[in-house]
Amino acid sequence: MLRLSREIRVEWGHCDPARIVYNPNFYDWMEGGLLALFAAAGFDMAPMIAKDADFRGTPLVRGDASFMAPARVGDLIVHHVEVSRWGTKSFDLHHRFTLNDATLVEANQTRVWARANPDNPQSLAAVPVPDAIKVALSEDKHIRQTIHQETR
Amino acid sequence: MLRLSREIRVEWGHCDPARIVYNPNFYDWMEGGLLALFAAAGFDMAPMIAKDADFRGTPLVRGDASFMAPARVGDLIVHHVEVSRWGTKSFDLHHRFTLNDATLVEANQTRVWARANPDNPQSLAAVPVPDAIKVALSEDKHIRQTIHQETR
Amino acid sequence: MLRLSREIRVEWGHCDPARIVYNPNFYDWMEGGLLALFAAAGFDMAPMIAKDADFRGTPLVRGDASFMAPARVGDLIVHHVEVSRWGTKSFDLHHRFTLNDATLVEANQTRVWARANPDNPQSLAAVPVPDAIKVALSEDKHIRQTIHQETR
Amino acid sequence: MLRLSREIRVEWGHCDPARIVYNPNFYDWMEGGLLALFAAAGFDMAPMIAKDADFRGTPLVRGDASFMAPARVGDLIVHHVEVSRWGTKSFDLHHRFTLNDATLVEANQTRVWARANPDNPQSLAAVPVPDAIKVALSEDKHIRQTIHQETR
Repeated sequence: MLRLSREIRVEWGHCDPARIVYNPNFYDWMEGGLLALFAAAGFDMAPMIAKDADFRGTPLVRGDASFMAPARVGDLIVHHVEVSRWGTKSFDLHHRFTLNDATLVEANQTRVWARANPDNPQSLAAVPVPDAIKVALSEDKHIRQTIHQETR
Repeated sequence: MLRLSREIRVEWGHCDPARIVYNPNFYDWMEGGLLALFAAAGFDMAPMIAKDADFRGTPLVRGDASFMAPARVGDLIVHHVEVSRWGTKSFDLHHRFTLNDATLVEANQTRVWARANPDNPQSLAAVPVPDAIKVALSEDKHIRQTIHQETR
Repeated sequence: MLRLSREIRVEWGHCDPARIVYNPNFYDWMEGGLLALFAAAGFDMAPMIAKDADFRGTPLVRGDASFMAPARVGDLIVHHVEVSRWGTKSFDLHHRFTLNDATLVEANQTRVWARANPDNPQSLAAVPVPDAIKVALSEDKHIRQTIHQETR
Repeated sequence: MLRLSREIRVEWGHCDPARIVYNPNFYDWMEGGLLALFAAAGFDMAPMIAKDADFRGTPLVRGDASFMAPARVGDLIVHHVEVSRWGTKSFDLHHRFTLNDATLVEANQTRVWARANPDNPQSLAAVPVPDAIKVALSEDKHIRQTIHQETR
């Protein structure tokens, strides 16, 4: 499977009065990682949604997460994300957040490929995941996004 | 069990380019609901943490959530939260978000009562949940927080 | 002018490692207050945007803010907002956040009434603020939104 | 002055139903940029606050911002930040956000060097900015943080 690993610098605003990352940020990062994975595979969600008025993206249907250790301001954590199952109209993602070699958070999500429901455009209908998506996201490659710093 | 139901007005900033609530907001609301439930039971977490330098709150250990239907800007949703299990050092919460009579999101969380680890204050140790907390949060009462509007 | 005052409970997730409200939350609340003010005047922005494909809302053009005192978890602050100037295509808002009788934050914003630019739909064009909006938001009324709690 | 320029990828969760960056995110990024600037100069705020119980960071006192153009999901914007004035107990920051060569947002902030007020630890007292901070942040250097992507 195509695997994306991206560095995330923990910022002041990610942390709460207990001085650790406020847990909803991990869910926010999962959304960012999904989009980054699709973009790395050549599929930019934003223009896909802008061009196709009835495409509704890949809404989250179910998720679970385990929190093993906290992260703190300044930590450089790594978010690993890949597809772990292909269904017809759905797929699963596996997320892992690490700091150095320790796993901080591990999570699974089931998402659907969604279009506007033709009978009621306010609601969603799951439709088959396009084959081109499955092929691109199933490639055996590892994409790494890292933050570089240079001084002049 | 003590049950809290609180109204949440979906705001512009809660919603994403798909024009529905961005799912990490539900996780943010779960944190808010936990604190509101404890406060309604007479236990304000912030002063508890401020007064007891080694108390670390009730960090999330595990959670799962199912998303059934979206919410949109302006929707007045209701967040229901109550303890669904008492362990020795942990407890489970059940969350449900409704819009009119439809369930939007249903979630379960396992959290621990945490103090600084005496051997390594940077890490946490789960300790027994105080009896006073269990008693207060086990009361058979329903607390409702609603938003009122009046014009003069 | 129509003035809206709304209660905001400061939550755990609004606060940072300094254990005070993380300042970007005040800017988030200003957006929420603007929408609440329009809604209270009978103009719900979300359906207005959904119904009129070229309407782009009231984007922020300029703002300033002064921060006098911090707020903390559990504080019940009040956000006061009203229009302070009408231009042809723009208007100014005045925001004030109070805790008990102290002013925490005072801010001014200039916003425009925006539509898609007919020459380039990706960009915005400021257009005259509709008279019905000016009339409704100029009424001499005070709307208060408060959080009520009841136990059964 | 020491100038930091850092790349920020606009994510789905940064954008609102108008499909542009929700403006409070720019204020969030300003906070992140300040911390990144201090860290690049050798001063990590989080350990400074953790080690010195009475140090309260550099709270925002006043700010203004002008918004010239929107950003959208997937845009790679650059945030430029540097000190623009040193006072005795305060300093000003200048922020600029660009996309390609266009300026999206320009902002100024006045912040103070703060410690707990000895007469009332709940409130803050501005104290002189340490000389070592002024020297480090006044160096004539440009630090660039960029996001790199590699595939294996």
